[in-house]
Parts: sequence; structure tokens; C-alpha cells
Amino acid sequence: MTKAIDFQTDPSRYRHWRVSYDGAIANLIMDVDEDGGLFEGYQLKLNSYDLGVDIELADIVQRMRFEHPEVKVVVIQSGKERVFCAGANIRMLGSASHSHKVNFCKFTNETRNTFEAAEQDSGQKYMAAIKGSCAGGGYELALACNHILLTDDSASSVALPEAPLLAVLPGTGGLTRVTDKRKVRRDLADVFCSVEEGVKGKRAVQWRLVDEVVPNSRFDQVVQQRAKEFAEVSCKADEAIGIELGPLSKTANEDGSLTYSLVEVLIDRNARKATITLAGPDVAAPVDMDALAAQGDQAYLLRLARELDDAILHLRFNEMDVGLLVFRTQGDDEAVLAHDDVLCNNTDHWLANEVLAYWKRLLKRIDVTSRSMVALVEHGSCFAGILAELLWSVDRTYMMEDEFEGDNRPTAAVTVSKTNFGMMPMGNGLTRLETRFLGTPDAVDASEAKIGERLEAEECDALGLVTMILDDTDWDDEIRIFMEERASFSPDAMTGMEANLRFAGPETMETRIFGRLTAWQNWIFNRPNAVGPKGALQRYGTGMRGEYNMERV
Amino acid sequence: MTKAIDFQTDPSRYRHWRVSYDGAIANLIMDVDEDGGLFEGYQLKLNSYDLGVDIELADIVQRMRFEHPEVKVVVIQSGKERVFCAGANIRMLGSASHSHKVNFCKFTNETRNTFEAAEQDSGQKYMAAIKGSCAGGGYELALACNHILLTDDSASSVALPEAPLLAVLPGTGGLTRVTDKRKVRRDLADVFCSVEEGVKGKRAVQWRLVDEVVPNSRFDQVVQQRAKEFAEVSCKADEAIGIELGPLSKTANEDGSLTYSLVEVLIDRNARKATITLAGPDVAAPVDMDALAAQGDQAYLLRLARELDDAILHLRFNEMDVGLLVFRTQGDDEAVLAHDDVLCNNTDHWLANEVLAYWKRLLKRIDVTSRSMVALVEHGSCFAGILAELLWSVDRTYMMEDEFEGDNRPTAAVTVSKTNFGMMPMGNGLTRLETRFLGTPDAVDASEAKIGERLEAEECDALGLVTMILDDTDWDDEIRIFMEERASFSPDAMTGMEANLRFAGPETMETRIFGRLTAWQNWIFNRPNAVGPKGALQRYGTGMRGEYNMERV
Repeated sequence: MTKAIDFQTDPSRYRHWRVSYDGAIANLIMDVDEDGGLFEGYQLKLNSYDLGVDIELADIVQRMRFEHPEVKVVVIQSGKERVFCAGANIRMLGSASHSHKVNFCKFTNETRNTFEAAEQDSGQKYMAAIKGSCAGGGYELALACNHILLTDDSASSVALPEAPLLAVLPGTGGLTRVTDKRKVRRDLADVFCSVEEGVKGKRAVQWRLVDEVVPNSRFDQVVQQRAKEFAEVSCKADEAIGIELGPLSKTANEDGSLTYSLVEVLIDRNARKATITLAGPDVAAPVDMDALAAQGDQAYLLRLARELDDAILHLRFNEMDVGLLVFRTQGDDEAVLAHDDVLCNNTDHWLANEVLAYWKRLLKRIDVTSRSMVALVEHGSCFAGILAELLWSVDRTYMMEDEFEGDNRPTAAVTVSKTNFGMMPMGNGLTRLETRFLGTPDAVDASEAKIGERLEAEECDALGLVTMILDDTDWDDEIRIFMEERASFSPDAMTGMEANLRFAGPETMETRIFGRLTAWQNWIFNRPNAVGPKGALQRYGTGMRGEYNMERV
Repeated sequence: MTKAIDFQTDPSRYRHWRVSYDGAIANLIMDVDEDGGLFEGYQLKLNSYDLGVDIELADIVQRMRFEHPEVKVVVIQSGKERVFCAGANIRMLGSASHSHKVNFCKFTNETRNTFEAAEQDSGQKYMAAIKGSCAGGGYELALACNHILLTDDSASSVALPEAPLLAVLPGTGGLTRVTDKRKVRRDLADVFCSVEEGVKGKRAVQWRLVDEVVPNSRFDQVVQQRAKEFAEVSCKADEAIGIELGPLSKTANEDGSLTYSLVEVLIDRNARKATITLAGPDVAAPVDMDALAAQGDQAYLLRLARELDDAILHLRFNEMDVGLLVFRTQGDDEAVLAHDDVLCNNTDHWLANEVLAYWKRLLKRIDVTSRSMVALVEHGSCFAGILAELLWSVDRTYMMEDEFEGDNRPTAAVTVSKTNFGMMPMGNGLTRLETRFLGTPDAVDASEAKIGERLEAEECDALGLVTMILDDTDWDDEIRIFMEERASFSPDAMTGMEANLRFAGPETMETRIFGRLTAWQNWIFNRPNAVGPKGALQRYGTGMRGEYNMERV
């Protein structure tokens, strides 16, 4: 096995980004270390990026919200002359496995989405200030910002040259953001996405590709001025002091299992499954927001989210053969609810808001994880409030009914809270319960009427909150058969099936990026015209163009 | 080259379906001739189908609307004992090329959509009456109907066994209709789509998979009773007499070109392009609806639609290497508008309504055609009303500006009519102009204010109706460069790019089927787990299960 990819980093270790803080404005400089690639075999020239660069970016965005609540505007710029960002590194992509390419694109997509979520959930606005060429993933980085300035010189342009140059699609939401966010006219989008050299100057504004084009001589000044203006009209309250996100307590064991303070991941390679067990609270719920801030990164729900987030990313990238994720909880459900209540009742406090917004992002990450997922509601479990949300993020839920011989843990129960009815929307804009009950909307109200009650198996079944309830006689066999069967199916068919069943109801830019665009990318990443020995991705940099089978599909 | 696939048929040639008419009710019996496969190498056992079976079905649905306007309810049943329909023939799929599989699924999807369109546009309701096993594409056939009855015996069930059994996805909208039309709870959908044997009896109703389950002894009686009830409450007016759809006037020439009465298709294989030229009217516009009925299938806009529809299907299936479709028109634009007006002003007449609804379907077929498409608005052209809609269905539009030396045809102009502002919605529910101007909605109003005016190049450019206007100096070079360049790109990248750029704005079940589901299918149809020598699709019927690479992507 190759070295595991680690998603944890901190500012002292950054090699590719610099951040400077200026009151409400943060200046984020992309200055990729050519020799700092995560893998061997390529140099990160021209501010091109690989997963390692994006892991740092994800860390920055996350810390910006917890450690720097004073920041209202983040300005992204390049530390290089003549180039803003050349996008994902092509040699890295050319040598990467299909699964790494797909996982890489998903992670970069999730990070770009956090730019937009930062403005929506916390009033932190991202701006891109483009000097030099801004191509492919570089322009997609800008597209994820909510304001784009482009300098007006002969070397500065925006471009999506992937299709003509590399025979693939822009990998990080570019096509969708061009049509759905920037609302570029589709024939102009067609022209734009077909010209390698991109579009510059006034035309870039006319075509809605950027918001402003600014003369080079005034560029830096206008950028800072615009940042100030956005900061002044920001709806974000003035917050002086954040909390520090310290290193996770995490042990990777020799058998592949992981032990965090609240999360345990056990891998069964023969059965191709990972069991993720979340523990109930080991600290008391904070009595007020000062107490929450004092707990800082040790607050139960924040620590649990960080650990679970890391575990999910680990499984995605480092355990490719694990087809099934099994979610369990064990702990005091009333204690979970106490922590849940503190957040729900203080949504106007910045830290409570950030912890809730983090769970929202984390649950969305779980929703789009390409593994079969099941939750087991066992005796002694604590699926309550936010944790109950996991039951409807996974593909199925099995629940223990009645007493099990020799098992004296508290009877399995589910408790819903306010968080389940609007605070944790899915990518489609609906809650998981609204999506689940699309055909029977009254069922949402029926569940809402039970807020705070411990709902045992029969009641959960009647309310439609779980897939199946099983007593002592059937539990072991049913679960075993399900797991064996699931592990025997084609992983590709499961990925496609789950991607289509998980997101009923309305579509948004977000579901479209993960649903439609991702699928087309996956397809193209399998086609010889892109990845075959004579494909464009393989031939990039050799001076030869790709040779294509011209059959249209 | 193998024999061209012909999409034209008529009731005298049907081998797989029988229709009997009983006033407002049509009984459609699927009784597939095992030996009637379109290609060699497989038998169509158990009412399984191939493209040939579906070509007949598409013909039936089309004739139902034009030849049988008296029909208000269509009841689909099986002519076989113990099986309703086993879905697409697996041996056919196993031996088909990737491109045929993709094209086949697209065509079957379009036909299923016409069931739903028939109720929406004409008040013709489709019902499925299921006796026996109904699996895969068989259940998808039922899902496209707006009422499903299932008999209650041990042999009758509905199933989508594709993922567990064949390592592919249901190919004809099944997953999307399960979640979005039937609104099945997603965990139950997950269970349903994972069990080969499917679901039967009361559980099928409880899970929303069918509308009614009926005891076997009363089944036939209840089916006819239900059909009568639907006919009685139908909003469809009583119409006694339809018009006959005679054979098309069509000549296939040795060089691959096609000549219809109003449509000409020229193939340039070296340039990988097909030029489709539509002629203006050769008959006068009917003075009233009696005159329209008297013109029958020779009415200009109906004949043009039928010919263009056939040409598009021909190009999709029989000209796989043609990457670019070039749309031209030549003729009298005022005459086109006269025909257009007659339909617009008589939408309450069944035949005018049917011709308009047919154009709506045809334009949607063009929207989802996986070829690059361009329209050339030349001097002498007649892009007016419905024909102008083509300008916004294609990827780009070039228009001639000012006089061209030696060209004395009328100056190029576009004329919009009422049809462009609501009568021809795309799959996303918006008009093509609304989708085009998503970022500048006022532009729709600006165009609407010009209804009936001949808009020459400069004005079209200012209104945003065309991509580029070119004068005599630039026209030839620009068009040539565009076409050469487009033909040089990877066809896969173009397919993916166009599929993402063409459908901005809201998503519907229809866009989701063609956008998301199709992409996942295409991906899986490329993966060795399905189509490799040890894949499930290849091994089907050998008694061996597929061998899978278990890496999750």
C-alpha cells in the first residue's frame, strides 16, 4: 500500500498558500511550490495544483471560519508573475488512477462549495482578483468566488480550455457555474469553452465571465477598495476572537483501523466494509456561549464533526476497496440532545452558527460519498438530533426491536430535534426528511410532532424513520445477508444507483455539479480519447495532439 | 457499412404489438416475436425488446395521436402468459457497441416520455396492466404510464434487477421515475433496486411502486373498468376522425445523402459533418381547420416535422462519425409564418394542437442529440416562428450580414412569432429564449416586442438572438475554421460539454433522465465490471456471475 494521504495540516506547514490578515479583510495568496507535489513525477508549475495544494486550501477556508470570525472578505490573488492559476496539474492527472481523479475532483468541488457556503452561512465573501492567465481549474477557483475582477492587459484572461486541449471536462464545477451561477448565454459559453486562449478584457465582462475588468495601473487599488466596500456592507457581525483548531487526537493502527477521541473506524477488508462508531458526549454540554467558546475545539459536536470529517476523507482516498460504510453510535442520547439544544438555541451566536454550518457541510460530504452506506440503530445507541440526521443520509437503516438476549444496554431509540427540520438542508435545498418523504409530506409533520421523544423501533417504523426493524431472532442474519450481498455487487452499479436515488426532488447548482457534471466527467475519464495511450491527457506536453476515435456517442 | 436502421414503419408491418380500438379506449398488446430481432444473434424471449420493438412502439404512440384522436386511454398489456415484459434483451445489449447502447437508451427514453406527453399535451392517458413478471425495462415501460395495476398472484411482480444482476443501471429512466415520479422513499428504493426478484402484492402499493394491486380473478374486469373511468373524466374533447400518416417521400442516395420532400441531408464524411437544409412551404397555408385536416399529412409543418424527425434519427444511428450537424433553411419566411400563424391561432383545435405538440417533441429530440449543432442564417433563409426555434436549440448560430457579392437572395433575417414564447418549452420547462437569457430576462421581452418583424443581422445581434454576424469578407473563413476546429475535437469531450451547457436553469424529471441518469449509464457502459469479458453483461446467461474489480469510484 502507498503512503496514506493525510488531510490534516496547519498554517505552520503550508507550502503553497500565504494568508495575511488586515482587519475584516484577508488576503489569500496562491504561490504554489513547484517541488511540493503530493506525489512523485510532476512539478507544480505555473500555480497548478494537486490534492496537496487543495488540502491546504480546505484547511485555510475552515480556519477562516473558526479562527478568524473577524474576516468578512477573502481576496484570492496569485503570488506569481503573469499567471493567476493554471488549474489542476495535467501530468498529475495523466498519471493518476481513475479513482484518484474522481476523488480528487470531488474533494476540490467540496472545497469550492465552501467558498459559497461561507458567504451564505457566515457572511464571509470570497473575491478573486485575477492578474495573468487564469485557466481551467484556475478559472473554476475564481468562479467559486462571488466577485471576480480581471485586470485589463494582454496577458490576463480567463479560460476553460479542457475540452479542446485535453479532451476532458473542467473538473471542478466550471461548466455548471458558467451556465447556472454566472448565467452566461449558452452559445457564448460554447464559444468560450472551445477556445484554448480564453477571453479577456471587456468581452469577459460582456459575456458575464467576470464582474469587472480594471486597468492594470489601478488594479491593486480597486481590488482593495472593492474588498473594503464589501466588508462595509457585510451582514456579518463584528467578532474579535476566534477559537483555535488544534491537531486531532488520532491514532492510525497497523490493521488499518483509526482511533480518534470520539470516532472509531474498523476495517474488515474481507467483507469490504468499514464500521464507523461515534461515541456520545464525554464532556458536559456548555451552559452558555462563553462556555462553548471556552471548550473551543474540544466542544463535543465540533470535535466529533472534525474527527468524522477526517475519517470520511481517509476512507474515500485511502481505502478504495471498502464498498460499505456502517455507521453506529454508542452513548447517552440525552447528553447528545443537550449539546444539540445549546447550538439550536443560540444560532445567532457566531460559534454555534459555525458548528451547525460545519455539520451541514459534513453531512453533505457524506451524502455524496460514493460508498454504500448503512446505519445500525442498536441498543445503547445515541442517534439523536444532529446524529439522527445520519440515518437519512445513508442508503438504509436497520433498527433493533425489543430486548436482545444478554444485552442490557438501553433499548434502541431515535430522537429528533429542531436540527432535523431545517438546519441541515441537503444539496437539493430540502431537509433529508423532506427528501425522504417527498411522496408523503405529512410524514414530515408527524415526525416533527415527536421532537424530543425517545422513539423506539415500532414507532420509528410507523413514522418511516428507519428502513427495517428487526428483533433478536432476525437481526444477525438479516444484517449479515445484507452486507454480504451488498459487497458482492458491482461497485460501479452501486455508485450509479446511489447517485440517482439519493437526490430526489429539486436540483440546485450543487446537486447538478455532483450529479450531472461528475457523471459526465467520470465517463470521459474512462474513454480512450482522453486517457488511452494516444489520448489527449496522456499526450499533453509531448507536442503531439490526442488521436481520437471519432464515433459520436 | 451495415444495413441502415429504418425508423419508418406502419401497422401492416408490426411484428411485436397489436392494437385494438374500442371507442375511447385502445388496448395495446405487447407480444414480441422471438425471431423478429432487428439484428442477428439473439432471440427476443419473454417479451424482451430491442430497437426494432421500440420503433414499432414509437410509431404506435405517434399514430395514436394523429390517426386516433378519439382515444382517451391506452391500456398496455402483455400477450404472453406469465410475463408482462422482461425488459431490453440482454444478449442484444451484451453484443451491441457502446454507441448503440447509448443511442438505444436515448430513443427508448424519448418514446417513454411521449406516453407522459400524450396525457399532458393531448389528454391521452397511458395505463399499464401487469400480469406476470415485469422486470427492468418492462417495469420502466409501466413507470412511463400514469396508472399501474398489478395483479395479485405469486408470479406477478415488478422489479429493477439491473444493478444486482447485470452491473448496469436501468436504461430507460427507471431510477429517476422511481424517486421523482412515483416518489418512492429512497431507502425503500434502495432495497427495491437491489433485489433481483422484485416486489409483489400489497407491498408494491405500500412502497408506491404501483397504484393498485387487484385479485387475479377480477383483474381483467377492473382494468377495463378503470380505463372507462379515466376516459369519462378525461379532459380530451370527443374527436371522431383522425388523419392518416402515409409513408414519407424519402430517397436514400448512394453517397449517403437523403432527399425528402422538404428536407435534404448532405453528408461530408471527410469533414465529419451533415448539412440539413429545410425548405420553405411548397403549399399554401390552410385557410381554416377544415383545410388543415384536408391537407392531412401533407400539411407543410407536419410533413416537415416528420421528415426532420426521421433525418435526425437516421443521423444518430446510421452516421456515427458525423460530429457536426449544420442546419440551414431556404425559402419564403412569410409563407412559413403563415403556416405558423394558422397553428398558433387554433390551439384549441385537436390537429393544430397535435402538430404543435409534435414540434415540441421534435425540438426536444434535437436538444438531446449528441452532436455539435450549428445553424447558418444565410440570405434566402426562412428561420421564422417554429423554424427560428432551431436557432436556440443548436449550440451556435452564425448569420450573414449585409450584401454578399453575387448573391441576390433576400437578405438574411429572423422572424419570431408567438410560438417562440411559450408553446415550445424545453425539457427544463422554460422556453429556449428564457433558457438563453437566464442572466438577462429582459432580453426575452425585448425579442417578444419584435414579433412578426423581419430582423436583420445587426438587430439580431443586438437582441442576442444569434451568436455571431459575419459579412461577405469574413463569412467563408470563419465558418470553415469553426467547422474544421470542431471536427478536430474529441467527440467525447464535446458530448459532455454540450450536455452540460445546453440545459441551464431548472431541472425536471426529463432533464434529469437525459442529463444525470444518461451520464451515469454511459459511464457504467464503459466499465469492465459491466462490459468487460468477465463483466456481468457479457456473462449473463452463462450461469457465471460477473467478476468485479472492487475498487469504489
